[in-house]
Amino acid sequence: MSQHVVVIGGVALGPKAACRFKRIEPGSKVTMLDMSDLISYGGCGIPYYVSGDVPDAEALRTTAFHMVRDEKFFEDIKGVDVMTRTKATQVDRENKRVHYENVATGETGVLDYDKLVIATGATPRKLNMPGEDLKGVHYVSNPHDAECIRASISQGQVGKAVIIGAGFIGLEMAEAFADMWGVETTVVEIFDQIMPRLVSPTLARMGMEHMQEKGVEFHLGETVKSIEGDGKVQRVVTDKRTLEADCVIISVGVIPNDFVAREAGLQCHERGGIIVDEMLRTSDPDIYSGGDCAIIKNLITGQPLFLPLGSMANRQGRIIGNNLAGGESSFDGAVGSFVVKLFETSLAGTGLSLEAAEGAGYDAFSVMLTQLDRAHFYPTKELMTLELVVERGTRKVLGVQGFGSSGDAMVGRINAVASILKFKPTIDDISNLELAYAPPFAAAMDILNTVANMADNVLREMNRGVGPAEFEKMWAARESGDFCFIDCREQPDAQPYMERNPGHWQNIPQGEIYKRLDEVPENKTCVLVCNTGARSYEAQIMLTHKGHKNVINIHGGMASLKKYGIEL
Amino acid sequence: MSQHVVVIGGVALGPKAACRFKRIEPGSKVTMLDMSDLISYGGCGIPYYVSGDVPDAEALRTTAFHMVRDEKFFEDIKGVDVMTRTKATQVDRENKRVHYENVATGETGVLDYDKLVIATGATPRKLNMPGEDLKGVHYVSNPHDAECIRASISQGQVGKAVIIGAGFIGLEMAEAFADMWGVETTVVEIFDQIMPRLVSPTLARMGMEHMQEKGVEFHLGETVKSIEGDGKVQRVVTDKRTLEADCVIISVGVIPNDFVAREAGLQCHERGGIIVDEMLRTSDPDIYSGGDCAIIKNLITGQPLFLPLGSMANRQGRIIGNNLAGGESSFDGAVGSFVVKLFETSLAGTGLSLEAAEGAGYDAFSVMLTQLDRAHFYPTKELMTLELVVERGTRKVLGVQGFGSSGDAMVGRINAVASILKFKPTIDDISNLELAYAPPFAAAMDILNTVANMADNVLREMNRGVGPAEFEKMWAARESGDFCFIDCREQPDAQPYMERNPGHWQNIPQGEIYKRLDEVPENKTCVLVCNTGARSYEAQIMLTHKGHKNVINIHGGMASLKKYGIEL
Repeated sequence: MSQHVVVIGGVALGPKAACRFKRIEPGSKVTMLDMSDLISYGGCGIPYYVSGDVPDAEALRTTAFHMVRDEKFFEDIKGVDVMTRTKATQVDRENKRVHYENVATGETGVLDYDKLVIATGATPRKLNMPGEDLKGVHYVSNPHDAECIRASISQGQVGKAVIIGAGFIGLEMAEAFADMWGVETTVVEIFDQIMPRLVSPTLARMGMEHMQEKGVEFHLGETVKSIEGDGKVQRVVTDKRTLEADCVIISVGVIPNDFVAREAGLQCHERGGIIVDEMLRTSDPDIYSGGDCAIIKNLITGQPLFLPLGSMANRQGRIIGNNLAGGESSFDGAVGSFVVKLFETSLAGTGLSLEAAEGAGYDAFSVMLTQLDRAHFYPTKELMTLELVVERGTRKVLGVQGFGSSGDAMVGRINAVASILKFKPTIDDISNLELAYAPPFAAAMDILNTVANMADNVLREMNRGVGPAEFEKMWAARESGDFCFIDCREQPDAQPYMERNPGHWQNIPQGEIYKRLDEVPENKTCVLVCNTGARSYEAQIMLTHKGHKNVINIHGGMASLKKYGIEL
Repeated sequence: MSQHVVVIGGVALGPKAACRFKRIEPGSKVTMLDMSDLISYGGCGIPYYVSGDVPDAEALRTTAFHMVRDEKFFEDIKGVDVMTRTKATQVDRENKRVHYENVATGETGVLDYDKLVIATGATPRKLNMPGEDLKGVHYVSNPHDAECIRASISQGQVGKAVIIGAGFIGLEMAEAFADMWGVETTVVEIFDQIMPRLVSPTLARMGMEHMQEKGVEFHLGETVKSIEGDGKVQRVVTDKRTLEADCVIISVGVIPNDFVAREAGLQCHERGGIIVDEMLRTSDPDIYSGGDCAIIKNLITGQPLFLPLGSMANRQGRIIGNNLAGGESSFDGAVGSFVVKLFETSLAGTGLSLEAAEGAGYDAFSVMLTQLDRAHFYPTKELMTLELVVERGTRKVLGVQGFGSSGDAMVGRINAVASILKFKPTIDDISNLELAYAPPFAAAMDILNTVANMADNVLREMNRGVGPAEFEKMWAARESGDFCFIDCREQPDAQPYMERNPGHWQNIPQGEIYKRLDEVPENKTCVLVCNTGARSYEAQIMLTHKGHKNVINIHGGMASLKKYGIEL
């Protein structure tokens, strides 16, 4: 039976659903509307176009085989009719009609549909403050924004940029400005860390440290009060300072475009976003939705989740395409996987961070491990840091986040957990995770196995430790006499630290602990440090075995202290 | 309660079990025996020592923090007593005693145990043919072999090497010889492909093509008849030829060392290997085993599996350590993940190959996809090829194998499936797999999602295709008039092929199919080709929609034909 499917929205989910349906039912008709003149662009590529990594904006709209995804492409190659600059003004569910208006000409019209897809996406959140409309103030939403930003940089008009918001897009844009164009770049973030709630403050600081080394300045915990300038932006005023700026990027999140759905009486979430079932149907069974305008299920918490990601939209589009053709494909939800490249490093994660887990009511803890990504004897290798978030009573893994090089090794570990998360694995599943092993790719005991083992050791109370944030506090209190800091490495490794910190930095190599027990003070908290926390863990076991109770192991050791930016 | 644990075997599992147990019960005593003078070495690193990537052999025996894992290390750092050059000659289960003999002095003795671990590993399989003991004929088993091989190369004694067996070690050794030392290297394999049963013939040929480009010669489907020489090896004689050789590596698999267990009456597999339960206990509850001498469960088939891998041994060692201390840790089995680096490429996999699946009785099929590892507009990217093996009726994923660059991107995809496999995912789970997405790391629709979608399309009979092996046969029959080869790319891409193959290579860009239907012959099998198989798939749908029945899509397109070594 031939159908007419109307798709509102021509980016990511819309085209995917349209084309998939059309492949299953080549005899049916599909009409896709979009308000813009540009459709089917890879919005996630904008920072790489701004940086110059992607040479021209059209590349974001071409296929892997170099065809521009414009109206003609969809008509000739995909058999999908496209109406650009066309806004869907109203969905008349009773008569199964979409009213539309051409945003250029004002012309209006009506389309009958058998099935409808609402793929209206999301809009950048505004700050709603003075100066937001000044020239030089940009959002990062579509290729027009991108071209405008890159043009102003490449014409030498941007010496100083301020980026408001340290989420994915803010950080990617900061890299684009600072790395390729040498722009003095400052990021202002209202929370006390970059990537708030997505990664722990410790991982966030590791990422920020690296970006600072690359020249990006950060002001955390600051609120922007106004954006000022005379016609063109000149400065950003926060509650703590005034920052000069020729260019301002506002990247403080996005809001789902649920207006047309809401007006049509479709069920929407109270905080925005169209509610869909597992088949991605809205409350009207002839209307589907997904992508950045829809609310899905968090597979960890079971709670509603707004996760505007191009990858998600594409996968959902295919499912909608199947179901438009009478299929029964389902999308059960998401665990929230992400990765962001920060110069030569990256931050990635899946599932819940410790903060998110606690916010969702879990009795959770996390362990953080720094280890090499491959066999330590293999010539090329990098340290990576993983933080595993675990529910205490059930041993269930709630999430994992990581900081590492910008290669694929760290995100590969995150993905191995991402794929298993919806099956509610315990730390024992991760401890036994069977990653492909050869020395050029992994250690015999992979960092993922080890971080789960570490969680097990923490639960067994064999490994009692803290990360660099807590070390920093104890180190700051070193004059109090409450702590003794014992370096468990061999003497040559510890020597420079002892020289720089006389009276505060003590050395007992782990293998000599039993012989030198008399050097360990009994009335102080012993803080044990080694390179990555493995030998200090052994030392902790030995001291505990000999009756010492107040012993703390520094998880991640010197490697994580260094990444965290602590100078000793 | 203090225990005495005896561990037979000082590599991988043995030390891991010993140290883990000792950490949980620091007051107990552990004695570890090994026949060799060298213990706890990373045998998997031997090819990288032979190549020179690892500068000295001792690096294979050091920790990440540069301590040599010798007797003193285990005693001081780990609290484990070690007896090297000591062979366990008999296990007296009734009296819970191990009889041993010093292989250097002949001295014998007895150790009482509360619990015993048999970690005797595996021995390289011998060919049992003349010449196997000649000087210059080596197995790759321990650092002594490694030093011997590297010494002979670095002293310039090796101009020509023959490697017998094209499994992991054989291929790694071939790379080591050819890449770093410029040795004329020939691999002889009894099967018709490298990595038999582990990857499909097509993936195997892609890997072999790359190794051939790097100068390694292969003779497949050949049986070695004898190894000849006058005191020192001079040639290898197969059933088809004689190969000159200064150095021969025999790498035809390993045999589990179950002798001492079998003699003690422990249950062993009829084809070798100690049988253990999920707690890694042998048929005697006070005796544990694991690693290369034990048989585990294949989590896909439920059948016994012999999988001698250092990574597996380490994970099992920890579980045994836990259980020695009264724990109830379990090791449920393995799915068989692997990766091998071949110069600038790698082959990896997890679960069953199509051949292994069919061998295990599954009604299985596979699809093979070649796609970029990240967003196509991102400046750095590589093509990778994945083959997904699926059970037809249930849509269950049985395995995935891949060929790609030697970076971490491909093995990352394999690992994402490896971790989910034991939960018996369907293709829909892989289609929706939520990998972390950003353009520097993945495409919005990741290759893993796409290969599962492709399997779905094959099951729906929307995508009817074959890979390069079948293309090669059809192309060889191009003069028969049975086939027409239609290049679905744009004219400039197709032009060179039309010029080189006049009368055989036709071009109809996919977007023009409907307009140029009269150019498609109705009485021939239409073979559709594009870059990677995406446009030819669309063209197939269009032709099918217009009534053409005999249309074949070349999966992987020109990209996979090229990797497979087909010149057009």
